[in-house]
Amino acid sequence: MARAVRAGILGASGMTGGELLRILASHPGVEVEWATSREYAGKPVHTAHPHLRGFYTGLKYTSIDKIDIGEVDVVFNALPHGVGASIVAEAYENGVRVVDLSADYRLRDQSLYPKLYGFKHPRPDLLEEAIYALPEIYGEKLRGARLAAVPGCNATAAILAAAPLVASKIIDMDVGIIVDVKAASSEAGSKPSRHSIHPLREGSARPYTPWGHRHAAEAVQVLRDLVGRGIRLSLVPHAVSMTRGVLASAHALLRDNIGFSEAVRAYASFYKDSQIVRVKPMAPGLPVDPPDVKNVIGSMFAEVGFAVEEESGRITGFAAIDNLVRGAAGQAVYAMNAMLGFDEWEGLRSPPLRP
Amino acid sequence: MARAVRAGILGASGMTGGELLRILASHPGVEVEWATSREYAGKPVHTAHPHLRGFYTGLKYTSIDKIDIGEVDVVFNALPHGVGASIVAEAYENGVRVVDLSADYRLRDQSLYPKLYGFKHPRPDLLEEAIYALPEIYGEKLRGARLAAVPGCNATAAILAAAPLVASKIIDMDVGIIVDVKAASSEAGSKPSRHSIHPLREGSARPYTPWGHRHAAEAVQVLRDLVGRGIRLSLVPHAVSMTRGVLASAHALLRDNIGFSEAVRAYASFYKDSQIVRVKPMAPGLPVDPPDVKNVIGSMFAEVGFAVEEESGRITGFAAIDNLVRGAAGQAVYAMNAMLGFDEWEGLRSPPLRP
Amino acid sequence: MARAVRAGILGASGMTGGELLRILASHPGVEVEWATSREYAGKPVHTAHPHLRGFYTGLKYTSIDKIDIGEVDVVFNALPHGVGASIVAEAYENGVRVVDLSADYRLRDQSLYPKLYGFKHPRPDLLEEAIYALPEIYGEKLRGARLAAVPGCNATAAILAAAPLVASKIIDMDVGIIVDVKAASSEAGSKPSRHSIHPLREGSARPYTPWGHRHAAEAVQVLRDLVGRGIRLSLVPHAVSMTRGVLASAHALLRDNIGFSEAVRAYASFYKDSQIVRVKPMAPGLPVDPPDVKNVIGSMFAEVGFAVEEESGRITGFAAIDNLVRGAAGQAVYAMNAMLGFDEWEGLRSPPLRP
Amino acid sequence: MARAVRAGILGASGMTGGELLRILASHPGVEVEWATSREYAGKPVHTAHPHLRGFYTGLKYTSIDKIDIGEVDVVFNALPHGVGASIVAEAYENGVRVVDLSADYRLRDQSLYPKLYGFKHPRPDLLEEAIYALPEIYGEKLRGARLAAVPGCNATAAILAAAPLVASKIIDMDVGIIVDVKAASSEAGSKPSRHSIHPLREGSARPYTPWGHRHAAEAVQVLRDLVGRGIRLSLVPHAVSMTRGVLASAHALLRDNIGFSEAVRAYASFYKDSQIVRVKPMAPGLPVDPPDVKNVIGSMFAEVGFAVEEESGRITGFAAIDNLVRGAAGQAVYAMNAMLGFDEWEGLRSPPLRP
Repeated sequence: MARAVRAGILGASGMTGGELLRILASHPGVEVEWATSREYAGKPVHTAHPHLRGFYTGLKYTSIDKIDIGEVDVVFNALPHGVGASIVAEAYENGVRVVDLSADYRLRDQSLYPKLYGFKHPRPDLLEEAIYALPEIYGEKLRGARLAAVPGCNATAAILAAAPLVASKIIDMDVGIIVDVKAASSEAGSKPSRHSIHPLREGSARPYTPWGHRHAAEAVQVLRDLVGRGIRLSLVPHAVSMTRGVLASAHALLRDNIGFSEAVRAYASFYKDSQIVRVKPMAPGLPVDPPDVKNVIGSMFAEVGFAVEEESGRITGFAAIDNLVRGAAGQAVYAMNAMLGFDEWEGLRSPPLRP
Repeated sequence: MARAVRAGILGASGMTGGELLRILASHPGVEVEWATSREYAGKPVHTAHPHLRGFYTGLKYTSIDKIDIGEVDVVFNALPHGVGASIVAEAYENGVRVVDLSADYRLRDQSLYPKLYGFKHPRPDLLEEAIYALPEIYGEKLRGARLAAVPGCNATAAILAAAPLVASKIIDMDVGIIVDVKAASSEAGSKPSRHSIHPLREGSARPYTPWGHRHAAEAVQVLRDLVGRGIRLSLVPHAVSMTRGVLASAHALLRDNIGFSEAVRAYASFYKDSQIVRVKPMAPGLPVDPPDVKNVIGSMFAEVGFAVEEESGRITGFAAIDNLVRGAAGQAVYAMNAMLGFDEWEGLRSPPLRP
Repeated sequence: MARAVRAGILGASGMTGGELLRILASHPGVEVEWATSREYAGKPVHTAHPHLRGFYTGLKYTSIDKIDIGEVDVVFNALPHGVGASIVAEAYENGVRVVDLSADYRLRDQSLYPKLYGFKHPRPDLLEEAIYALPEIYGEKLRGARLAAVPGCNATAAILAAAPLVASKIIDMDVGIIVDVKAASSEAGSKPSRHSIHPLREGSARPYTPWGHRHAAEAVQVLRDLVGRGIRLSLVPHAVSMTRGVLASAHALLRDNIGFSEAVRAYASFYKDSQIVRVKPMAPGLPVDPPDVKNVIGSMFAEVGFAVEEESGRITGFAAIDNLVRGAAGQAVYAMNAMLGFDEWEGLRSPPLRP
Repeated sequence: MARAVRAGILGASGMTGGELLRILASHPGVEVEWATSREYAGKPVHTAHPHLRGFYTGLKYTSIDKIDIGEVDVVFNALPHGVGASIVAEAYENGVRVVDLSADYRLRDQSLYPKLYGFKHPRPDLLEEAIYALPEIYGEKLRGARLAAVPGCNATAAILAAAPLVASKIIDMDVGIIVDVKAASSEAGSKPSRHSIHPLREGSARPYTPWGHRHAAEAVQVLRDLVGRGIRLSLVPHAVSMTRGVLASAHALLRDNIGFSEAVRAYASFYKDSQIVRVKPMAPGLPVDPPDVKNVIGSMFAEVGFAVEEESGRITGFAAIDNLVRGAAGQAVYAMNAMLGFDEWEGLRSPPLRP
């Protein structure tokens, strides 16, 4: 690249913003031009993210009121849902590429926003423009795209676990899929609350909003794209005692006369071109090597497993990812790479950190 | 009580054995006569359980070869599955009450033992005698019983979450129930293995044996007792990053025209007589107070919640328990109390410890 | 006891207040008459402490403005430092026994309050009346006392580790003692802050206020009581990644010609009458059984160890306690028992919970 | 580089070996030629390190008996102490560069090996050749060196915390330094033991070998190099509840008339040329930004803080590092870079991962 791509980050003092800064620090072709934060305006980036001291040494947080959105080539939106929808639309119209990490451009059906996110979408006309930035399914469409909507972390895990079941048509579509999600504390971000303090969260395991998680709508939209019909899919998230990672378990019933070997084909075929999905069949007699969030921390890798309970005809697909990388900032950088013509894995090749 | 009940513990150096000793230390009517351990024979109890130093000061571990099984009033079997089945049968025949914490007397169908536990049952004639020691369902039968089989921890949580769904007949029994379990590291006991060391387990979330957990057989047997017919039930356990507790999420489809209010009735009615089940309906608009393992640690309490996703017709029942108390040693002491005529809650009344 | 002692708790929605409620729930001679909380006024106790649902079923939080301090026999002050000092003085004058869990009556030197706690003490005349509620040192004085000041958690651990070194005069008093403290997240209470959220605290290890911890003043006061002279003692606390417990390591230099055997005598002699201090000498060749917070969780037990490095002439004394029981609510209940003529261990006899 | 440097790793299935493989996977100039493991011989690298699946795809573990030590340019020794000392000596004589991560070449005084590590050193003649691979102190000597001894993790943290105190001569050298270390569970490696299992280590805080840690000898040797005289230094390690990281707290007494400003100069001056040490003075009134292991995970960064307690004349220096990167594999790669003429930070520039 002749000169570095200039990037701006909206909402850079939260956890997703911090992760974006961390990843971009290793990207050879990107320069962060500005990073916004009301709380930290005027202060260096390491005030909010002490682990980044020594990086971005010249960069101070800017108030969002003071940025010039047109002076960058790409803008990342890591603001809370609804807050940045108009700003990024403006950027889009100025020819700035937009990578939106919020939910603002994920759903094509504008009627879902008031219901799920509590706001009327200001720019429904752009919803069809946005590419849902899941590499395995929309990787081609991302190339050269102008607006990318980065999938939610729980949705990413849910889709990776469930998509082969749907695409291969091996399951009973009427019964559908129940996705049971186990999520880390960093999903809740960095805003303190009564239930997010360490002594009350550590050692805890509990469901939250088990009556309809908004990420289910994303998953349903994607699965409909895959097979051209609706699917009954529920997503029940649980808070468990870890700081990073999501594990999704997608439970379904197999159609008659379908068994483990068809499942092997379904998953192998769905992920045959992926460099970052590790497919792990689980069955009695196979070596014990389950999908584990512990194996993907800090990386874009997903571990996707599956197992069949022959007696009851059930199948479960599993997907383990890092919620902040694969489920947010890493997928955002992947999108940017594809949109701007970089190698798609630029800045994303580091192996996971374990233990 | 005129004089203390004399108890013996088979396999008292493991985690379940330790928890039994901890609880019995606060029981005013029981004296532990002997406690076996091959590894620690001749050594004080606090060698294996340093937290119990100062309790059982006169007691040393005995090799199992040296005990006189007839000199106690009650024997607790906390040996690995299969190892103690004959010994406790002998005790039973000598008139000693038996509380078996292993799986050896949980299943009435002898054909399941070779398949699920790898041994042919030595005393199938006693399987019908054993009372499955779940207070909410078999509490009456435990009174004065001579042989109690303490439920498995995952089975306990699964049954508590699912039983009201089945008993009330509000769910589609053909689709059945999938129980997704989140389990603590203490479930694996105190024997070290490559995957149980702290750095590899902490921060981990992964499924194990997702093709048919043996605790499912217990749950199926109990649910059949409740409604007189079989039920399709699968149990998929996951290891999560905590030391104590199990959270079971029982997913099912509601029958037509059944909704949240029927679920409220189903759970309220099932647990109306229980002193230790906290029923927690979850729905938009209700205060946020989910069932959480964090709320029951160190106690017999169970937190049972449920939520309905109206759109998809799904219901999920949740149960959070302490795997070592409610899922093992506490339920064992409850059984002993009922069998020997103590107040059933003797030694089991302490509130949970939080945080 | 003919009738139950009536107790009131000031500040009962925080962690210390919750722990006090937990312990008193098992105390046969005490009835909690009122419990204050501004935030939860009018709501049941389990709103703030969900683990206590099923206990105190008739009790609702009262605003502090609405209590009648004279209608109870004993009042526990678990308010933040400085807030309750006048209220409990009023109670004291009405003949109500006072057990103060804050720092308000710990220090006899009134000049320390402005400096360490930022307030001028409203009742310096009462400072000499208050008995510092550390059973090992002031147990006798607590009997029948009217005002008890419950030691701070870090101070309790520091004193238990260091006192035998001072009392036995085996260390170089001019060099003095440096107490390095490792503290759990529950020490910070239940008020959320930017640094107390789970993802940023879990896996963390960092010092805080390492230039002079206010608990050092308590420890110095106690050690002066023991030997009649001042001692150079510093206390450097560190936040580590656990929810309960404090481990204090008291480092000092031995006087010439003093070695391990003198240390054995010093610790054995200091704790010879204690039922709840487990003395654990550590040296090459002895069984590995270190003092560990893991061994005392949920209990009044302290594990006190020590080791000598012959070559350098150093000695380290260690003390591991539960910060919320031994370091707060348990010690408060012990004080109440002694003040009111109960058996001193009433309500405090449960073994620790492990794992 | 014209062609990649060929590397061999002795003992590549443990935690240090895994971390070395992880870091080298991002190093553009190194090819791992062989990696030994008896247990995993013949199996792919991801069998022992599932997070590395997708890397080193052609590489299988070799038995140590089957390697040709001469066919590589550099050999890393990650075998247990004592096991690889002769093998690497042979490599050294064949002109292969040696980076030894064990303790085998750390100490120049051969008499210490039998005492501290239980073996007589087979090649005492090489001890003087080995460069102790701590960049801040021996960085110059590492350039072009043939044999590097990678510092122990606790020693690295201890030296980084204490060296400025000694080099600047601001402390009382007769009283010396006590280094109190808080260490993660990954320090104990991947071999399971009774005390390393998750349920018993999580939530624990306890000292180990508090009578003379062998890493103290390394620290003493380094500090003697700095000031040409011996120093009384003790190192007391504690196991705390985290998976990665070491925090060392070096406690000392300041000489008369020395205070905070002299400490500021001492630390600033000692680390003025370092790119990877973040110096963090701590005092009342300064922003709260303590050295924290959480800020350096996965990286070569060290956070070094210090604080002065004016009243008692104490100073504490702190150092937080990642035990597996800065305390082992990262420092090893740094040494290799310096020895072979790479940019010293090649492969080591990624920011830390937080949370």
